[in-house]
Amino acid sequence: MNLEETARKIRTMEIRGAGRIARAAANALYVHSMEEKTTDLVHYRKKMNEAADLLVSTRPTAVSLPNAVNLVMRPLKNESDFLSARQNLEKRALAFMKRSEEAVSRIGTIGARHIRDGDVVLTHCNSEAALACILMAHRQGMDIEVYATEVRPRNQGHITAKTLSDAGIKTNFIVDSAARYFMKEVDLCITGADAITVNGSVVNKIGTSQIALAAHEARVNFLVAAETYKFAPWTILGQRILIEERSSDEVIPAEMKNALPNVTVRNPTFDITPADYVDLIITEAGVYPPEMAYTVIKEQLHWDNEDMTSDLPYCEEE
Amino acid sequence: MNLEETARKIRTMEIRGAGRIARAAANALYVHSMEEKTTDLVHYRKKMNEAADLLVSTRPTAVSLPNAVNLVMRPLKNESDFLSARQNLEKRALAFMKRSEEAVSRIGTIGARHIRDGDVVLTHCNSEAALACILMAHRQGMDIEVYATEVRPRNQGHITAKTLSDAGIKTNFIVDSAARYFMKEVDLCITGADAITVNGSVVNKIGTSQIALAAHEARVNFLVAAETYKFAPWTILGQRILIEERSSDEVIPAEMKNALPNVTVRNPTFDITPADYVDLIITEAGVYPPEMAYTVIKEQLHWDNEDMTSDLPYCEEE
Amino acid sequence: MNLEETARKIRTMEIRGAGRIARAAANALYVHSMEEKTTDLVHYRKKMNEAADLLVSTRPTAVSLPNAVNLVMRPLKNESDFLSARQNLEKRALAFMKRSEEAVSRIGTIGARHIRDGDVVLTHCNSEAALACILMAHRQGMDIEVYATEVRPRNQGHITAKTLSDAGIKTNFIVDSAARYFMKEVDLCITGADAITVNGSVVNKIGTSQIALAAHEARVNFLVAAETYKFAPWTILGQRILIEERSSDEVIPAEMKNALPNVTVRNPTFDITPADYVDLIITEAGVYPPEMAYTVIKEQLHWDNEDMTSDLPYCEEE
Amino acid sequence: MNLEETARKIRTMEIRGAGRIARAAANALYVHSMEEKTTDLVHYRKKMNEAADLLVSTRPTAVSLPNAVNLVMRPLKNESDFLSARQNLEKRALAFMKRSEEAVSRIGTIGARHIRDGDVVLTHCNSEAALACILMAHRQGMDIEVYATEVRPRNQGHITAKTLSDAGIKTNFIVDSAARYFMKEVDLCITGADAITVNGSVVNKIGTSQIALAAHEARVNFLVAAETYKFAPWTILGQRILIEERSSDEVIPAEMKNALPNVTVRNPTFDITPADYVDLIITEAGVYPPEMAYTVIKEQLHWDNEDMTSDLPYCEEE
Amino acid sequence: MNLEETARKIRTMEIRGAGRIARAAANALYVHSMEEKTTDLVHYRKKMNEAADLLVSTRPTAVSLPNAVNLVMRPLKNESDFLSARQNLEKRALAFMKRSEEAVSRIGTIGARHIRDGDVVLTHCNSEAALACILMAHRQGMDIEVYATEVRPRNQGHITAKTLSDAGIKTNFIVDSAARYFMKEVDLCITGADAITVNGSVVNKIGTSQIALAAHEARVNFLVAAETYKFAPWTILGQRILIEERSSDEVIPAEMKNALPNVTVRNPTFDITPADYVDLIITEAGVYPPEMAYTVIKEQLHWDNEDMTSDLPYCEEE
Amino acid sequence: MNLEETARKIRTMEIRGAGRIARAAANALYVHSMEEKTTDLVHYRKKMNEAADLLVSTRPTAVSLPNAVNLVMRPLKNESDFLSARQNLEKRALAFMKRSEEAVSRIGTIGARHIRDGDVVLTHCNSEAALACILMAHRQGMDIEVYATEVRPRNQGHITAKTLSDAGIKTNFIVDSAARYFMKEVDLCITGADAITVNGSVVNKIGTSQIALAAHEARVNFLVAAETYKFAPWTILGQRILIEERSSDEVIPAEMKNALPNVTVRNPTFDITPADYVDLIITEAGVYPPEMAYTVIKEQLHWDNEDMTSDLPYCEEE
Repeated sequence: MNLEETARKIRTMEIRGAGRIARAAANALYVHSMEEKTTDLVHYRKKMNEAADLLVSTRPTAVSLPNAVNLVMRPLKNESDFLSARQNLEKRALAFMKRSEEAVSRIGTIGARHIRDGDVVLTHCNSEAALACILMAHRQGMDIEVYATEVRPRNQGHITAKTLSDAGIKTNFIVDSAARYFMKEVDLCITGADAITVNGSVVNKIGTSQIALAAHEARVNFLVAAETYKFAPWTILGQRILIEERSSDEVIPAEMKNALPNVTVRNPTFDITPADYVDLIITEAGVYPPEMAYTVIKEQLHWDNEDMTSDLPYCEEE
Repeated sequence: MNLEETARKIRTMEIRGAGRIARAAANALYVHSMEEKTTDLVHYRKKMNEAADLLVSTRPTAVSLPNAVNLVMRPLKNESDFLSARQNLEKRALAFMKRSEEAVSRIGTIGARHIRDGDVVLTHCNSEAALACILMAHRQGMDIEVYATEVRPRNQGHITAKTLSDAGIKTNFIVDSAARYFMKEVDLCITGADAITVNGSVVNKIGTSQIALAAHEARVNFLVAAETYKFAPWTILGQRILIEERSSDEVIPAEMKNALPNVTVRNPTFDITPADYVDLIITEAGVYPPEMAYTVIKEQLHWDNEDMTSDLPYCEEE
Repeated sequence: MNLEETARKIRTMEIRGAGRIARAAANALYVHSMEEKTTDLVHYRKKMNEAADLLVSTRPTAVSLPNAVNLVMRPLKNESDFLSARQNLEKRALAFMKRSEEAVSRIGTIGARHIRDGDVVLTHCNSEAALACILMAHRQGMDIEVYATEVRPRNQGHITAKTLSDAGIKTNFIVDSAARYFMKEVDLCITGADAITVNGSVVNKIGTSQIALAAHEARVNFLVAAETYKFAPWTILGQRILIEERSSDEVIPAEMKNALPNVTVRNPTFDITPADYVDLIITEAGVYPPEMAYTVIKEQLHWDNEDMTSDLPYCEEE
Repeated sequence: MNLEETARKIRTMEIRGAGRIARAAANALYVHSMEEKTTDLVHYRKKMNEAADLLVSTRPTAVSLPNAVNLVMRPLKNESDFLSARQNLEKRALAFMKRSEEAVSRIGTIGARHIRDGDVVLTHCNSEAALACILMAHRQGMDIEVYATEVRPRNQGHITAKTLSDAGIKTNFIVDSAARYFMKEVDLCITGADAITVNGSVVNKIGTSQIALAAHEARVNFLVAAETYKFAPWTILGQRILIEERSSDEVIPAEMKNALPNVTVRNPTFDITPADYVDLIITEAGVYPPEMAYTVIKEQLHWDNEDMTSDLPYCEEE
Repeated sequence: MNLEETARKIRTMEIRGAGRIARAAANALYVHSMEEKTTDLVHYRKKMNEAADLLVSTRPTAVSLPNAVNLVMRPLKNESDFLSARQNLEKRALAFMKRSEEAVSRIGTIGARHIRDGDVVLTHCNSEAALACILMAHRQGMDIEVYATEVRPRNQGHITAKTLSDAGIKTNFIVDSAARYFMKEVDLCITGADAITVNGSVVNKIGTSQIALAAHEARVNFLVAAETYKFAPWTILGQRILIEERSSDEVIPAEMKNALPNVTVRNPTFDITPADYVDLIITEAGVYPPEMAYTVIKEQLHWDNEDMTSDLPYCEEE
Repeated sequence: MNLEETARKIRTMEIRGAGRIARAAANALYVHSMEEKTTDLVHYRKKMNEAADLLVSTRPTAVSLPNAVNLVMRPLKNESDFLSARQNLEKRALAFMKRSEEAVSRIGTIGARHIRDGDVVLTHCNSEAALACILMAHRQGMDIEVYATEVRPRNQGHITAKTLSDAGIKTNFIVDSAARYFMKEVDLCITGADAITVNGSVVNKIGTSQIALAAHEARVNFLVAAETYKFAPWTILGQRILIEERSSDEVIPAEMKNALPNVTVRNPTFDITPADYVDLIITEAGVYPPEMAYTVIKEQLHWDNEDMTSDLPYCEEE
């Protein structure tokens, strides 16, 4: 799939999900580089930068997209020789795709070590990484039980329940409002993340922070399972994560809405869970407390001093 | 409407809502007493006790029902003379119905004094008493704005939004999960109550305790508007309020449920908000902190020493 | 001093302080009753009611004033005979004045029992009742040390420091901002109160709630010393205590203010300490937890059922 | 057993335990009154007052003792006729003994209603009232499991474990330090009380407050089971409960102690659990939140206005 | 300005403010190096070390001073060649001065990204870095409003209010005690810092920790704006920051003080805000959570392993 | 002492204590390498790996053991030349032993800087590192006082009390349950650690977390003194620290236990204190907040990227 097609599909959401978007972008850069005829570094750099800008512009609020592009594009900054620049870029693109593909399974392996036989686990929304931990624990023979929330307004909990039921895991399905009611029976919460900021705040599906608060109140551990490219490097420079509000149709049928002239539907996609309520973040590179986000960004996303003094290049601010 | 018909309608939920049930029971006792031909106190007492038992048995978990019956039946305990027993009982039945009818409006008047011009108020579920406070504040000319939750699984928030919109009040409609997200913009929470225990715990629609927790975290006052007959006297004797779980169909369509063999839908109607998260309870008799529930029960529900040493007469336990 | 003169002096703040205002009002009613020539109950009641209204109108936000008037005027409601109404009213006026005069000393006696030899006590503002506890403990031979705050903007801490120094008590004088810094060395906080609401919130000099919060954070007991007429009965009916804002001149000289065109001085006199941060309230009638405010109002201010269903007669609302 | 013998046995601790002491004192007053030959009220009052003073002086820090004496002696204050004073006193003595004897079983009945089938209950020390709740729940067929602490330094937990084991209840025996470790597996804590103050603080065996804190941290309900005569009325007047320190021999053998010249053994018997960490107090008269202690004192210990203005008659202060 | 003059001016506080002191010290070392005639490394090192010691001794508690000296002096440790040692030292001195001068503006750029249009910001004391964020947000066209405290005892709030008013920013001026009262209307707190320890504690103007506590209580974000040289590296070795107490004259006029023989004025300059109450620290190098202080010290102050095993060379301990 | 003997003595607990075990293992590897006759790298590596595996297998739950072995064995991974591999390994073994021996004294020096003259310090269990801080402060002439707990069930507090008494330090000896009771008189808590996880949780003697909770409640700083080899690197990969349960005989005599058929003794050795309750960790390399554990592991235990992608090689999981 070439650059333009990839860009289009990300923009139209044919390609969705942090991992798939990131890998598609890396692949598009790889293909674009392969197809590039020039042998001149300046020209090559210009062409690749245009490609990078195009890709990043398609979903300015997705954290994984600029992270992927940034990781792949890094050789262009430092290399002074066309050939090694190109080879290096292509090598990094392939490496990124490979690691991304393996990340969820690696997270499952590490995360399952935090589940004990007999545990009751609560999860919210439909996170591949969070489910990987639960499924791995189940596959290892642990007798576990899950509470899965409905996840209004888009009901992603239905998919979660399906996955768990199909895997043969005893699952309790509850409305989002019932999380605190059942929290006393829960041993562990695990959710995914859409983005993680430099001070360890976790941006995730609306409702997550409420559940984390209720877990904290009941001394229940709250774990986040997230690939390292969910960490948002530009938050080091003060960038704030945009919380998108989606259509009111997701919440209330249009015809009903029309009968409510004084009513505005507020439909934020995400909320922000402060680091205080998060015990651990499980990544494919290991387990970190949320306060270590800066270190993850430096070590895993290869954020360097030059980045530190730059502006916010790829990301639009709220 | 005579006794049997009333009992039937309460049982089949044709008569619903704490206030309507309570008034219907009081009225049934009134009518039953009027129709009673005897002039013998012993016989009269026996007949009325049977009626009381019948009524209470129809909805053993509704707090307002035994409270109403208890308040009306009290003269039978102490009176030694048929005529005054009967007159007193009938007088009390009428008084109860009148007070109950006026209670919501009185709560509105008192509660509106806790709302200030410009306030943003969050409410959950569809409480007549909570809405009375908001509507009264609006009627008094205050410029207020409301956040109303969806209230899964039965979507009572749609009714709340309709009431507010029709009254011309600027309303934001949100999913239950978004309460903490918007809490920083809220000045005051007001909800109703289904029951209040002797230590000030508030039993109310599932999700209430989660919102109260989020309000507490953000130093937002949390008020409960409730008629005095929502206080549960038998909790003094250790009774625990039964949290009913309703059909899974409310949460998930049966056909979808059937495809999820390992999934159980847990659908509790209420949850319990501890007194620590409740700033005030607004009743038709005035404002109380939740810790004062015992005093409300004694003064307003005329709970006496004889009651204190009794067993749990009318109420089934969890 | 007759009625008009008393009213004038309260209005012009020649008579100040919750206790002095209350006693002056009781005395004015007493004198007015003595001087009344009529022997007709209806006429007498009318005249006394006018006097009461006049007095209460002079300082609508002072809680002790309507409390005193209400306590004295109570016989007029129930008595059907002129002579006993008048005698009763005059007796109550004298009794109120006597109790009020003795209240502070009684509070000192009770409160000193909560101080131990060697204790370090922090106080804020200049409360006669709070100081009575400290002075009594000192007089009983305890070796105590006090932290007294400056109390901006009117520097009432200077008076407190003078009183303590004159009594020979080792005193540390600190700016208001230093309360948390020294809290780890404090064993006990004692302040006064301007008003106490039905849910145990303590209205007191600005800065009190901040100190109570810091005490709570460090597990330091926080006691409030207050005469029973500081409890605000009409808060039962939803009344909110008005927090007056005073002149900017108290905070910043007018000439400096004039050079700051975009600056508004906000100068609230009081703040509100929630019951959660108050361990005990010491009154002349004994020690109560703040949640018991309703009971104090009923037992000590003789608030009755008729009051419960009334409106807010004497008090202006915020 | 006559007065002097009773007094001696209480003093020498032959008679121990709040309930037994209280009943012995009531009985001693009863016997003393029966044996009194006079028919003169003044003389009778004098003799009985001397007896009361003698009894109370034997254990000045036991709360149940002055409570029992006070309840029995009350008629002497108000009665103006010898015969009815005496009859009334004797009647009250008998009534007190009967109620005290039934209190524990009544507490068991009420408290068991707060235990659910399958619950894991933690208890500390060896409280008859707390165990009554657990044993009653077990007797009613509930499948419960208990965590019992060792209770250093006197190892009262050994007796608790014996009682539970003999009753056939699955029990886990742990050192006091392990309470927080196992708290996540606990559904409910129940302890007894040695005294309860007017603001709901619970004085109980050293270690109780630490467990209550750990329960609070984990959202585990903490219940106190206590006869009404454990409430300390004179705390209304500012009395503080004396926390006795016992011999170092209980903690460390004398010979070891001698080898530690710079070591002082501090061995307080009780600690104080603040009302904030107590969800409910279960008495024989019903369930109360701790903030209601004043009301319990008034209603159950018949504390009256005269008491309110008195000094601390029977109790020594700390 | 030569070394001795610089040293004198820092000692006499002619040169004040963390930034100005640091730059003056760097400049003095630069000038001193330029003026040094020797070409012998040993001699040069000796002379420069003496200069460094002199400078650091002038204000042993100012964190920026040893940080600046340390950063400039570092080449002397590692270089083995006179010329490169000297060149490197001078280059670092110039670089430090440049970065320090730009730091505040960079902090303003980054910090302004955390302010949103319509925000109400509270600040305490008069921090150039904190104000830079507010002023930048205003300059970018955001409609913001500020609460500025008085800052007893030296009233630095007057300067802050002047700066804000002159910039055309709507400002509310309040006494320090009113911070909690207005906290519910505040969206964000930003203050500066005098020093930041390795565990993220923020040493700042007395009163800061009280405000941070009140912000935490109300879920209001609390940001600290501080140049990286405010981080205190020797706290890694256990150094504690000295909290200076200043003259009583700042708090109370000497003549008034004289009339208070038993009163001591305690006038600490700073207090310590624990990391728990700080959401973010904004530096010229980016945004960090307070727990990352060690990393800032290592990366920005070039603290190395040799430092780790050293003693506390330049700094006097408390 | 050769390899087999060392392995045996660690297994049989003749060699105990984190430091002694670690040094013995390093020494055994050193001796084993010295005795190895081969000059072939492949063979040498194989032999040393077998030795390492043997050593680690002796006490799979001791954190210091694999840390020591890992630090010593590291050269074998990277070196390609036999001689430098062997020299490097032996050099590292000696360096590890030296550093380990000096670690406690270095911790004492750093930790004493956090104690102030006049401080009251509470410690739990018998930690050499924690005591080093206290003893050093005492040696420096500070007038300090210590609270030492009994430490059931093995009474390690007796040893602590002996050490302190012998050093001439005023010590209070208390049962574990009394920690919260005396916490208000404590200025600082210092304990040791058995292991520290990547998110800063401190595994230490049962009861530690309860004391840390009580310290947190009273705003008392809680410090942990621990050598860097107490940090558990494999927790980065999700490893959980095994909490061993020891024999019931430690808690209750066997004959008593036999009389309690329904009683199980639960005797966990350690509990887990969350990072939230720990202010600082004092290591021989400096002071860190607990959230920095990952950095300590990387910098001090030389954990590298290869480790990050490995499995859990030496450690058994819970």
